[in-house]
This record gives sequence, C-alpha cells and structure tokens, in this order.
Amino acid sequence: MKILCLSGPNLQLLGTRNPAVYGTTTLDEIHRDLAERASLLGIDFEARQTNHEGVLCDWLAEARLFFDGVLLNGGGLTHTSIALRDAVEAIALPTVEVHVSNPEAREPFRHHSYLSAVCFAKVAGFGPSSYRIALDGLVSHLQRSALASPEREA
Amino acid sequence: MKILCLSGPNLQLLGTRNPAVYGTTTLDEIHRDLAERASLLGIDFEARQTNHEGVLCDWLAEARLFFDGVLLNGGGLTHTSIALRDAVEAIALPTVEVHVSNPEAREPFRHHSYLSAVCFAKVAGFGPSSYRIALDGLVSHLQRSALASPEREA
Amino acid sequence: MKILCLSGPNLQLLGTRNPAVYGTTTLDEIHRDLAERASLLGIDFEARQTNHEGVLCDWLAEARLFFDGVLLNGGGLTHTSIALRDAVEAIALPTVEVHVSNPEAREPFRHHSYLSAVCFAKVAGFGPSSYRIALDGLVSHLQRSALASPEREA
Amino acid sequence: MKILCLSGPNLQLLGTRNPAVYGTTTLDEIHRDLAERASLLGIDFEARQTNHEGVLCDWLAEARLFFDGVLLNGGGLTHTSIALRDAVEAIALPTVEVHVSNPEAREPFRHHSYLSAVCFAKVAGFGPSSYRIALDGLVSHLQRSALASPEREA
Amino acid sequence: MKILCLSGPNLQLLGTRNPAVYGTTTLDEIHRDLAERASLLGIDFEARQTNHEGVLCDWLAEARLFFDGVLLNGGGLTHTSIALRDAVEAIALPTVEVHVSNPEAREPFRHHSYLSAVCFAKVAGFGPSSYRIALDGLVSHLQRSALASPEREA
Amino acid sequence: MKILCLSGPNLQLLGTRNPAVYGTTTLDEIHRDLAERASLLGIDFEARQTNHEGVLCDWLAEARLFFDGVLLNGGGLTHTSIALRDAVEAIALPTVEVHVSNPEAREPFRHHSYLSAVCFAKVAGFGPSSYRIALDGLVSHLQRSALASPEREA
Amino acid sequence: MKILCLSGPNLQLLGTRNPAVYGTTTLDEIHRDLAERASLLGIDFEARQTNHEGVLCDWLAEARLFFDGVLLNGGGLTHTSIALRDAVEAIALPTVEVHVSNPEAREPFRHHSYLSAVCFAKVAGFGPSSYRIALDGLVSHLQRSALASPEREA
Amino acid sequence: MKILCLSGPNLQLLGTRNPAVYGTTTLDEIHRDLAERASLLGIDFEARQTNHEGVLCDWLAEARLFFDGVLLNGGGLTHTSIALRDAVEAIALPTVEVHVSNPEAREPFRHHSYLSAVCFAKVAGFGPSSYRIALDGLVSHLQRSALASPEREA
Amino acid sequence: MKILCLSGPNLQLLGTRNPAVYGTTTLDEIHRDLAERASLLGIDFEARQTNHEGVLCDWLAEARLFFDGVLLNGGGLTHTSIALRDAVEAIALPTVEVHVSNPEAREPFRHHSYLSAVCFAKVAGFGPSSYRIALDGLVSHLQRSALASPEREA
Amino acid sequence: MKILCLSGPNLQLLGTRNPAVYGTTTLDEIHRDLAERASLLGIDFEARQTNHEGVLCDWLAEARLFFDGVLLNGGGLTHTSIALRDAVEAIALPTVEVHVSNPEAREPFRHHSYLSAVCFAKVAGFGPSSYRIALDGLVSHLQRSALASPEREA
Amino acid sequence: MKILCLSGPNLQLLGTRNPAVYGTTTLDEIHRDLAERASLLGIDFEARQTNHEGVLCDWLAEARLFFDGVLLNGGGLTHTSIALRDAVEAIALPTVEVHVSNPEAREPFRHHSYLSAVCFAKVAGFGPSSYRIALDGLVSHLQRSALASPEREA
Amino acid sequence: MKILCLSGPNLQLLGTRNPAVYGTTTLDEIHRDLAERASLLGIDFEARQTNHEGVLCDWLAEARLFFDGVLLNGGGLTHTSIALRDAVEAIALPTVEVHVSNPEAREPFRHHSYLSAVCFAKVAGFGPSSYRIALDGLVSHLQRSALASPEREA
Repeated sequence: MKILCLSGPNLQLLGTRNPAVYGTTTLDEIHRDLAERASLLGIDFEARQTNHEGVLCDWLAEARLFFDGVLLNGGGLTHTSIALRDAVEAIALPTVEVHVSNPEAREPFRHHSYLSAVCFAKVAGFGPSSYRIALDGLVSHLQRSALASPEREA
Repeated sequence: MKILCLSGPNLQLLGTRNPAVYGTTTLDEIHRDLAERASLLGIDFEARQTNHEGVLCDWLAEARLFFDGVLLNGGGLTHTSIALRDAVEAIALPTVEVHVSNPEAREPFRHHSYLSAVCFAKVAGFGPSSYRIALDGLVSHLQRSALASPEREA
Repeated sequence: MKILCLSGPNLQLLGTRNPAVYGTTTLDEIHRDLAERASLLGIDFEARQTNHEGVLCDWLAEARLFFDGVLLNGGGLTHTSIALRDAVEAIALPTVEVHVSNPEAREPFRHHSYLSAVCFAKVAGFGPSSYRIALDGLVSHLQRSALASPEREA
Repeated sequence: MKILCLSGPNLQLLGTRNPAVYGTTTLDEIHRDLAERASLLGIDFEARQTNHEGVLCDWLAEARLFFDGVLLNGGGLTHTSIALRDAVEAIALPTVEVHVSNPEAREPFRHHSYLSAVCFAKVAGFGPSSYRIALDGLVSHLQRSALASPEREA
Repeated sequence: MKILCLSGPNLQLLGTRNPAVYGTTTLDEIHRDLAERASLLGIDFEARQTNHEGVLCDWLAEARLFFDGVLLNGGGLTHTSIALRDAVEAIALPTVEVHVSNPEAREPFRHHSYLSAVCFAKVAGFGPSSYRIALDGLVSHLQRSALASPEREA
Repeated sequence: MKILCLSGPNLQLLGTRNPAVYGTTTLDEIHRDLAERASLLGIDFEARQTNHEGVLCDWLAEARLFFDGVLLNGGGLTHTSIALRDAVEAIALPTVEVHVSNPEAREPFRHHSYLSAVCFAKVAGFGPSSYRIALDGLVSHLQRSALASPEREA
Repeated sequence: MKILCLSGPNLQLLGTRNPAVYGTTTLDEIHRDLAERASLLGIDFEARQTNHEGVLCDWLAEARLFFDGVLLNGGGLTHTSIALRDAVEAIALPTVEVHVSNPEAREPFRHHSYLSAVCFAKVAGFGPSSYRIALDGLVSHLQRSALASPEREA
Repeated sequence: MKILCLSGPNLQLLGTRNPAVYGTTTLDEIHRDLAERASLLGIDFEARQTNHEGVLCDWLAEARLFFDGVLLNGGGLTHTSIALRDAVEAIALPTVEVHVSNPEAREPFRHHSYLSAVCFAKVAGFGPSSYRIALDGLVSHLQRSALASPEREA
Repeated sequence: MKILCLSGPNLQLLGTRNPAVYGTTTLDEIHRDLAERASLLGIDFEARQTNHEGVLCDWLAEARLFFDGVLLNGGGLTHTSIALRDAVEAIALPTVEVHVSNPEAREPFRHHSYLSAVCFAKVAGFGPSSYRIALDGLVSHLQRSALASPEREA
Repeated sequence: MKILCLSGPNLQLLGTRNPAVYGTTTLDEIHRDLAERASLLGIDFEARQTNHEGVLCDWLAEARLFFDGVLLNGGGLTHTSIALRDAVEAIALPTVEVHVSNPEAREPFRHHSYLSAVCFAKVAGFGPSSYRIALDGLVSHLQRSALASPEREA
Repeated sequence: MKILCLSGPNLQLLGTRNPAVYGTTTLDEIHRDLAERASLLGIDFEARQTNHEGVLCDWLAEARLFFDGVLLNGGGLTHTSIALRDAVEAIALPTVEVHVSNPEAREPFRHHSYLSAVCFAKVAGFGPSSYRIALDGLVSHLQRSALASPEREA
Repeated sequence: MKILCLSGPNLQLLGTRNPAVYGTTTLDEIHRDLAERASLLGIDFEARQTNHEGVLCDWLAEARLFFDGVLLNGGGLTHTSIALRDAVEAIALPTVEVHVSNPEAREPFRHHSYLSAVCFAKVAGFGPSSYRIALDGLVSHLQRSALASPEREA
C-alpha cells in the first residue's frame, strides 16, 4: 500500500503564518510525523508541497500510476481550481480532503470546495493532526476495500 | 474525560436506508464499537439518537454540565437548524461535526452546514468509521488541551 | 393494502384558521371521510396529526414496517425540513404530497417543497378534498404496481 | 357542465418519449379514457393538443365562452410562458394544472410554474392517471361551487 | 386580560450563554420580573420555555383559546420556522416579537425573521429588558384596542 | 409616413379581462380611435393583434419593408421573448413600447422588459390612452427625424 | 387644474451633459415649452428642479395641498430613493414618471425604478419631448377622472 | 441626561399619510407626548424632523457633543442610506431605531435596515406609541449604564 | 443518411440584420451551400426556417420519423424555450446546436442555452460557415456511430 | 490649473470617528496640507465638505465651469448614490476617487462603488495621505494631458 | 499560415480519464491527426499541452509573434482563469475555443466560459474530432480573412 | 528599507496589449522608472514579473524574509486567486494593490478583488504611473510606521 500526501499553496508556511488559525507546527514536522506513522503501519508514504496548481495536477497524474490513495490539502486552490478537481476525478484513486483549519468556519469564500465532490472523505479542523487522522482513515478505508475485493490486491 | 455522541433525525435507520450511500452497519453497531474503543482509551462515553431538534438541544444543554466533548451528527438538521447551532455555541464544549457520507458531494442543499461555524472540526465520508475517526480526533484534541492548560483539568 | 395519512404542524387547526384559504372542514372530518372511503375500497387506513417534525420522522420510520403507502401533508415543514425529506426518502414507500391550498399560488417561501423530490406525486389546492383525491390516486397507483409486480403482493 | 382539456408542446409524443419518465400510454388513449369517464359523469368534454403557445391562448379565450372548467398541461410552457399564464387568468375559469410527471422532482428549471398562481389546483406525478384524477377533482369542485351558488347554474 | 410569554430554543440558557451578547440575567429572573409587573398592572400572565418547535405550536394553539395576547421570542426558530409563523398567523392574537439581542446586528442568517410578517410589533436589543418593554407595549396596545372596540371586552 | 401598431397575446381580451387593471375599452375601439387620429394627422396606419410570437416576428419583418415606425405592445411576451426582441432590433425601425397598465407596478416578473433595450421610447399606465399617447410621440419623433435628415424622406 | 413638474439631480445640466443621450435642449427651454402648452390648455403649471432628495420630498408634500397632479423626473434618485417613493405615495396625487432617455435601455442599475410602483403612468425615451407627452397624458387622465367623479371637482 | 429624537423623510406627514398603516396621530402630537414624558422622568429632550439625509447627519454630529442618547426613525432612508448609518456609528451614542409600522411586515425593500447594525436596540410596529416605548427603553438603558459606570456620569 | 437543418426566429433575415454580427450571406445562400455539400457527401438533406416555436416542435417530431440527425439554430428561442429543448430531447436524434455568431460573447441573456444539454455538440461563431462545419461534424459523427453499431444501420 | 477637492457625509468627523480605521488627523489638517502642497506646485486649489448629496452635485456642476480636475471622497454616498455618479459623469472632468480607508477591505456593502466607473483613477487606504497621493496623481495626469494636447491649455 | 494548438490541465490524460465522457483516443493521437491534416492543407502546425496556467499564458504571448491562429482547449481553466482570458485577448489572434465534451451539458460550474468572450468561435462535443473540426473552421476563417485583406498576408 | 514590486499574468505585454486601456509604456520602462525613483529615495528595490500564480506565491514567501513592503499587481489573478490572497496575508508585510487601469470601471468580473482585503492600500487607473504613485505611498507609509515604532527599525 502506497500513499501520497500533497499540500498546495502557502502550506510551506505552516507554523509561521497565522499561528492563531494554523498552530506552530511546521509542514516538515507534519511530514516527518506522517512518515513515522506510515512506517509503523507498514505503508509506503511520500509527502510533497508546491505552490503551483499545475504541479499538483502533474503529481496527481503520477499518483495514478504509482500510489493507492491520496491525502490532499489544496490550500486556497480548494475553492477555486476546477483543474485540480478534474485531476483528482481523472485519477480515480481514493482521496481524502484535508484541512488544518475548518474552512467552513472562516470567510464565506472558503465555504465551497471544488474537491469535496471528488474526494470520498474529508477531515478538517484538527490542526496539524488533521493529516494524521486523515491518514488513519484512508488506510482503514483501503484495508476494508482490499478485504472486500481481495483480487484487486493481487 | 467524558464524551457524548449525538445523532439526529433518521440516523436510527442507518444500515437500512440507502445502503449505497450509508453502508449496512446499524447505528447500534456503531455505538457499541465506539463504546469499546472509548473503554480501551479509558474514557467515559455515552451515545444517543433522536429525531427531535428540541431533544438534541436539551441533550446539548445537559452535556454542558456533565461532558467534556461532543460528537455531533445533526443529520438533515445540519443544514437547516439555527437552534441546533445555537445550542452547540452556547455550551462552548469542543464539538466535532460527524457525517457518515460526504454531504458536500451530494445535493446542493446539503453543502451548507450551520454547525461547521461552531464545531472546531469535521469528519465526513468514511462511512460508519467517521464516528470512530472523529472520536480519536476529539480525544487527542482534549488531551492536547489538557496538557496546554493543566489547571483546567484540576 | 394499508395506508397511513400524516399531517404536520397547525393542520389540527383546519377549519378554524384562515377559512378563506383553508375552508371550514376540520381535520377530524377529513379523517373520518378518508376512513369511510378507505373502508369502501377495502383498504386499511390510519390518520394522524402532530406539530412535531421529530414525531413525523418517527411515524414515517414506523410506516416503513407496517404500511404500503403514505399521504403526507407536511404543513409548514414542507418548505424547511430536510429531516422530513430524508425520512420519506429512507422509507422508500410510495408517498403522495398533499396540500389543502395551492402553496405555489401563495407567498414565495411556500413555492419550494423539499418533499416533492421524494414523493412520486402531488395533489394541491382542492381544499379538504385534496386528501381524498390523493387517496384515490395512491390506491390506483398501488393497484397498478401490484399488477405489474404481483410477487411483491405475495 | 362542459370541460376542456388542453395539452401543450410535445405532449403528442406521450408514450413514445422518455417512457421511464412518462410511461407508454399515448395522449390519444388518455383523451379516450377521459372522454369515457366524462360521459359516465354526464359531462360534456373536449380534449386538444398543440405545440403552439398562441393556439393555447386562442383556445383558452374560446373556453371562456363555451366551457365551465379547464384541465391544463402546459408542457414546457408551464415554466416559461407569461402569455399562457395571462390567458388563464383572463378567462377566470376554474383551471387545474396537470402534469404526467412530478416536475418539482426533476431539473431545477422545471420547479417554477407560471401557471400555479392562476390555477386553483394542481395534480402531478400520477403518470397518465394525473389527467383522470384532475378531472375528478375539477368536477367535484364545480359541483360544490354549483351547490354553493345555485343561481350561477340557472 | 391574559398574556402568554413564550421563549424558544436555548433561551433556558440565558445568563449562562454568551454573556457579552445576552447579559447575565436568567430566564427565570426575567419571568419573575414580568410576573410582578403584570401583577401590578392587574393582568393574568404566564411564561413558558421549550426547545421544541412543535411544543411552541401546541402552546400557540392553546393561547388562541385562553389568552388575549402573546410575547414571542422564537430564538433560532425565528429565522427558520414556517411552522411557527403559521401557528402565530393561525391564532390571530396580537403578538409581539421579542429578542434579547438585536438579531439584525449579528450574523446575516439572523437578519430575516419569519415571525415579523405575522407579529404586529417587535422589540429587540434591550437585553433582558426587551421582555418588559414588549409587555408594556402589548398591554397598551390591548387597552387601546379595548377602548376602540369595547364590545370585544364584554 | 406609415405606422404599424402590433399587440400581442391576450390583448384581444381587452375590455373583458381584469377591468380593474385594464379598463373596459376593447382593442377594436382602441384601433378605431388610433385610425381616426392617424387619419387626422395624414398618416397611413394599420393595427393588428395576435397571440403568436411567431406571427409578431413575421409582421415585424414585414414592417421593415412597408412601414416607418411601430407601436408594440408585446403583452406577456414583453418579459420572456428574446425572439421578439431580436425581431425589433433586426428591423431597425423607430419602435415605441406600449403598455395599457404600468407593468413595473405589478408582479416582479413583469418588471423586466426584453423590448426596452431595442425600443427608443416607452409609454405605460395611461390605460387604453397609452396607445394614442404613444402614437403622438412616435409621429413627433418621426417628423423631427425627417427634419433632421430630409434626404431619408426622399 | 394645477400641475407641478419636478426634476431631480443633474437635470439642470440637460442640454450640456451627454448630448448623445439627452439631446441639446436645456431644462429651461423644456420648462418654457411646458408652460406655453399648459397655458393653451388653460392649466396652472409650475416647474422646478433641485439636486436635493429632501427638497423633492418637501415639494411633493407641498403639492399635496396646492396641486392636482405631478410630473416627476427623479433623475438618479429614481433608482435609489425610497424616501422619494414614500413622498409620492403619501401625497396620493396622480403622478407620471418622466424620463428623457429610456433608462431600461441603459446600465442595469437604471432598470429598476422605485417610483414606478407609485406613479400611475410612465413616459420615457422621447428626449425632451417626454415631458410634453407626459403632460398631455396627465391632463387627459385628470379630465377623465373629473368626468367620472364630477363632485371631486366641485 | 439629554435625549435627541430624530425623524426622517415624510414623517412630517404622519397622521395624514396612509392612516391604515400609520394611524392618525401627527408627529407634533408625538413630540409633545414625548416631551411630557421626558419631563416627568426629569430628562432633557428635543425632537426634530427633516426630509434631508444631510441634515440628519449634521444633527447626529451635533448630538455627539450635546446629547446622551438618540431615538432615530430614519423613514425611507433606513433602507438606503449608508451615510446615515456612518453618522450613527461615528457618534457612538446609544441609539434606538424606531418605526411606527413594522417594516419587516411590509414590502421586501423595507426588510433590510442599514441602521440596525449600529443601533443597540429597535422598537417597531406599536404605531405612534413606538416612540414612547423606545424612549422608556433608552432611558432605562442609560440609567443602567450610569449605574454600571458611575464615573462616566461624573 | 438523412439530415434536417432547422433555423428559428429571425434567421430568415440573415444577411440583412446586423451585418457586423451576422455577415451578409442570406439564409437561402446558406441552405443552397449546405444542399450542395450534402449532395457531394451523398446525404439526403432538407433545410427549413420558421419564426414559430410550435412549428419547430412539429418539425422535430417529424424528424424523429424521417431523419437521422439534426442541425438546429434556435435563434432567440435557444435561451428561452424549454418546449424546444423538450422536443429535441424527445426525438433522441443526434443534434448539433448551431450559431452564426458566438452567443456567449454577446449580451448576458444569450450566455445560457437550453439546447446545449440535449444537443451532443455545438458549433458557434464561424459566421454562415458555422452551418457547414456543423454539417461536416454531424456527418462524421453519424458515420462513426454507424461503424460502431452497424446493425442499427440495417 | 485649478483643482477642487470634495468630501462627502461624515468626513467632517475625521480624526474623531473610529480612529482605528481613519486615524486622528482632522479634515481641516488634510485641507491645509493639500493647500500647501498645491501652492508649492503652483496650482489653484479649493477644498470643501458637506453631508448633502445635493450640495455635492451642485459643487460638481460648478466645478465643470471653474476647475480642471476633481478629488472626490464620496463617503457613504460612494456606494449608494447614482445621482452623485451622474454628476461626475456629466461634468466630464478628470476625477480621482479618494478613500481614507480601503473600503473593499471592510463590510460587503462598501465593496461596490458607483463612482469607480466614472472616475479615471482611485486611491484608497493610505489614511489621510490618500488625499495627497491622489492630488499628486491628478496633477501628473493633467500635466501629461496638457502635453499631449497643448491646444487644450491655450 | 501557422497554427498553434494548446491544451490545458489534465488533457494529457485523454483516452484514460472518464472514457464515457471523453472517448479513448489519446491526446498524442489527436496531435498526430491534426498534424497530418495540417500538412495536407499546407499549413504549419504545432501542438502543445501543459497543466500550468502560467505556461499557457507564456505560449499565447509567444503565439502572438510566431503564429496566425490558435486552437485553445483550456480544460478546467476555461471556467476559472481570467489570466488565460486576458492572454487570449492580449494577443489578438483569431482563436477557436475547443472542447472534447459539451461543457454546457455537464455540471453547472462548466456552463460559463471566460474564453468565449475573446474567442471568435467555439467547437464542442464532437469528441476528439472537435479539434479537427475546429482546425478546418479556423483555416477557412483565416483564408477568408486573407482574401478580404490581402495586404495583411504580404 | 527594501521594496519588492511584483506583477502577474500578461503584464509583460504592457505597452503592446490594448494600448487604449493600458497605454504604450512597457513594463521594463516602468521597472526602470521605479528603480530610479527608489534610488533617489535611498531605497532598495527589486521588480519581477511572472505569468505563474505559484511563482508569485513563492516570491511573496521570499519577500517575507528579505523585504519591508510589496507593490502587487496581480493582473487577472486579482479576481480569482485565493492562493495569492493567502500568500499576501501570510507574509504580513505592508502591501499596496496596484492596477494600471481602473478595474472597477471595466467588466463586472473585474470589480471584485481578492487582494483588497489583505492589502492596506490600493492605487488604480493612473496608467503606468500607478506603480510610481503606489511606490511613493508605500514609502511614506513605511516611514510613518518606522517613526511610530522606532524599535521595529532597530
């Protein structure tokens, strides 16, 4: 089982930007924490960040070939990018939408997510822990799916 | 640490209604699963369901006196009830919004949640597992808060 | 064949409230008239009224086990209650939306019905007779369905 | 008592178009069925269909002089034609809005009806039976009105 | 002269919830204060609170038979309940809409009130005193009406 | 100078429909009154009515070849017909929008006119006199234009 | 018979502002032309202009006491001033809304008029002639009203 | 304690305009009644009316220097004037929004008030008594504030 | 293979109306050009124009029996006619939406097309050539479909 | 070169109102600062303030005759006054829209400006310095225009 | 004559993503097919794809210098990117908007295209053939333009 | 003091694109002009342009470490990019929104700016001079801030 974790624009600033909203943990710390947990669970894991919508689309297309599931924090693109939405839909991999804060509790322009309709699940508002909670949920989901359709594992 | 899990209208039908959307696990099974996990974590736990908005408000007011955190699946009231929203806001307890399906991936009238603005976090779309994932997230959150402000524990 | 007739908030006031809009027949008279007609048609029939959205959801869940079809006048909840809509959808019984007046000919907030999308048919504007006309239509519908899939009757 | 039944655009295709939505009964069969029932009830009855909004307006103006009530299925014009609405309003005859399917359960652009505000009642969703149910309702309505104001009959 | 004072969801929490918005006076204290004032004015008075929309409708239907006027604080239902609005309209008693805070100065979803169109007057923003000010206004209104149509008093 | 006066759906009912709104003068009387006045002014004049959008478009296309100006009362099509609007725009003749009542003082769906943007002027609300006032205004307009560009007259 | 003609903000600039839209005739010339025509018709006439919404309200209140009808060109206030609308409604005098250009053919924010709902008629788009056409229409209207209710004249 | 009562456009017509909506009491009578009551309460009081938004802003700026609280009936400006709203906000005096009728029960364009967000309270619908009820409420409010912060009085 | 080309309101004016937008080629010239091309491709072809929505519906119903595909330029009805949309949907023939200009680059009311959802393809903006380009595309489409399901040809 | 600086409602309160938003500099100080700078640049300058929309229109009409450019801070009228917009458009002088705060960063009702479409430029958010920055920009603009069309200077 | 064909985000996945919507032809196959056809027509042709909005803007700016026309399939950016729209507008080359599917027949967020207003034509819904049909149309357009203004070719 | 000037998509085309809107000065000329002025003021200055939203985010994150203020012309991204908005907000540096034209005077989709809420000031419409005027304003702002909090300088 191989999972890709993607974070979009400005998430490289986590831990420095708006600590009241996002906390002080950096994205590197989150990535390390996720890698450790994945390692414990015996899962291949990789985490990347970019400010470029196009790079996220490139990586998602790549995920289709080399990964089994995706954690996706689209940052500000969550609310504006149909291209990103189409990339998630196109690869047809189980994807969890992740947010550090709870976007629906913030400005109205953060209430609508183009990604929700193509992600099977969503975790938001647990701070940096949102990533880990989403990882747990995605792994359980993939394990249940594997049990349900064992041949897919073969 | 004491946690209350509340489910709203029609969730007593889980496992029988729209299995394509909600799965076949019943709410009783979910409650038992949550109670076991809570027991393992050494947490007091209680789960209730009602079809009545007024009863949910009553229970939330009660939660304010006897519980430390809430898991809340408002069902259809999520999108229509300001009374429920006000009850959550009034009790000022850490509350996680839970959904079995991913409402934002369904009909437009399910895209807006009155609860999001007063819940600190949200878990949706993991099927019956959403409850357990939310429980884990809520417990971690309460533990972190306890560490940050130990006197509150005293 | 067993049919349940449910009426929502304020319909117990029929015959006393706004006679210009709703006429002077009381809900009790309507219920008696429906029971007589059902008796003539050899149908089991039961009629109830409540001002509580939650009770309507309870009764609909009960209908799923003990009835073959539903007449539903949601009253003011018609336009506001997703919980009621979900209850109708969940029980998957043939349901007719009934209105004494013609809501689309009244204030704009009565023009949208959450129930229409989950009821197979609608009768509105015939005054107290709307119930009886809807009963006739529902019975015909159930009889046609029984003919089409006789095993379901068995 | 003389009743006119009017059907608008594309209803001549009933029984051939979208059978999943509209069934396989043709409009001719519906008209024959209505005529028989009217005959049983001792009512003069006439049924027409046209794809032309203008012809519907012409016929409604004619109805004002020669008929006592109208069954009107405006087809797609239901949602777009103020001219048709004005014609119904102008003739001031009791009119029932009829639909084979339940338009409010279909695309959003079928949710609003210009006719509802000028028709005293509405029957929708019973398939081809909608016409007959509406006929029964209209006849009862006219009979009740005749009893209430017998001089109008004279 | 007999007046009923009704308060809706979460108002039992007054004095404990959001003191910055609602003050620290409890609903019981308000009720006692109103009863005293009513007693001074020689008026029969009764005050109730419930979190249930259905119970409010029940009480309003009861008020129609036993009271001369109503003070109504619908809480969060003010903005969402057509059922409550219909209940007020149906009983046709002089009703004053009361709010502790000034809802139009708060979140946009509190700016629209379904009750305003069926209440003859509104008092908002005076804190717990809103109830007493509304009581004075309602009593004056009833006294003026009594003078204008003395036979109604008889 | 040759002027065409066109009236759309249901205007043949003028004098019989909603006298409170439209008065009791018939369209024939209006046409005769206009013909007399035109005769006095030495103008060729013709008046027609139809319930058909398509016929109005046909007549407007004809007007382009044989008339110098148009009086147009689109009836209910005023608010819904882009086809009619395009016909007026295509013929590029001075056209006055005429209304017997004042549509902007009526239902909201009568507040927008597709014709206003392609008619140089508008007269509304003078009852049947609206036509005559519009005729006077159109004639003056054409005379001023003729003076300004005499060669066009040649 | 005494008529008051009021023009609002920026109409003192007529003849100098946007000649392509408004022509080159000045407001003074229009006023003189109207006075001459009124004199011919044996009518008392007075014309005023102001840039102040408050002054227009003052003049309308004055008109209630001393005039029989009003011509009102609200200028930009047409689309924004409920105060002006209320003043027209309060004085209950026959009022014609006048516009030099055809506002509905211009920017969207000029398409809605607060005055239309309280003016019995509207003349727009004839350039400076709009005033004279409106005067003729208003005089006819007042003469017809006088015939209909001669005692009002007494 | 010194209170200023301001009324906006067209309120000088109270008692003459739309008695069905506003009653027959004149604004002068209201002012005298308020002055008497203020005198009884030992309060300095002054009442003014103007049709000019600019004058209301001038008076509010003056109020900031010489008064302790304001009663404000903005008339039609309530719904359109951000300038008036800004003036109220700028002076930072306790202000009560007053309406003779209940604007939210009237036309939709009267449902939104720019003033509500900057007035601490609102009284509407009690007819001319709205002013007196608002005065009582404002005085109580100022007295409570004085008790809470006695030094402000000094 | 037999193709029907239908053009709606005002398209008979092509070549004379707004040459800047639509060019100077007449509809007759377009029809001749299409017929020649169809003849070269060995296709039966027929072209018609009408200003009547009802006639377009009639022709589409006829097309269902005698043609294999349709080119449809709805003119102004494109944006307003659900009846036309329903007719296209009902006949279930491959249909291409054609426009001489690019409606989405013009007024906002031309941006939405009721036909797009029921036409499999769209060609717009190539001037009179849009028809020929659409013909080529439709023929290719029908040929590909014939290859894919040869039995349908049989 | 002669420049007029106009400020609208409540700007006379600058320095006293909401210092957090507007700073503590008074409008008089701003005017003096602008006059000094204008004097240095050898420009005639005049600055005025009023709370009256009508007076602003009067002054703008005057500016047309005696000034070469305008600095305009419309205050709250910026967002509501079409009359002010029309006055700016009518005088056709280069005008800069000035704001002390950044209205688009404040309440939604301050996001739209009627003035932007008729002002060639905008300066906002620099506090009292906005005026001076706008003056510099306007002077440069007028100098560039003078160079480009020297005859206009003559 | 030199034509550039640009495809945006996720179009590199054509043939693999949603074959039901987009078919199984890959973008490489489309590019080869276009190149062959261009070669037959004696046209220079180049085709590129990128997931980056910025790269599309770069390429369009380059096209301005080295190409005569553009085929542009913006993918998901079609509906969201004003930057892309501005790039097309800035280069002022004849551009055809191309879509494999018919976006207006899909989700509402695909109904609006920012590109339509700056592309002279549009081809959608023919599957991979849309590109070739658009190429033919663009070539004809350029040839007609060349004939009309031969000097531009020189 | 060190200032970074960033320009977004298509601004590299300044001087070549739409000269009527943007003038003929190139971005390079603007950058040189700004560098000279900055040099005169003794300020470190750097100017960059990119068509990539992601690169703008990268540069803004870099600015946080190495610059004291930012001039930002987001081009078309101004109206669509929440990612860009978040980047500006995250770096918490004084930022001025710059536009060559006055976007609010252009198409409606340019009226809303996501950047305004996170930029302290805005300069628009002065053509290429907008940049220099904004630079002056930003420098003054930074100097005032430095005076107000000298320790921040230390």
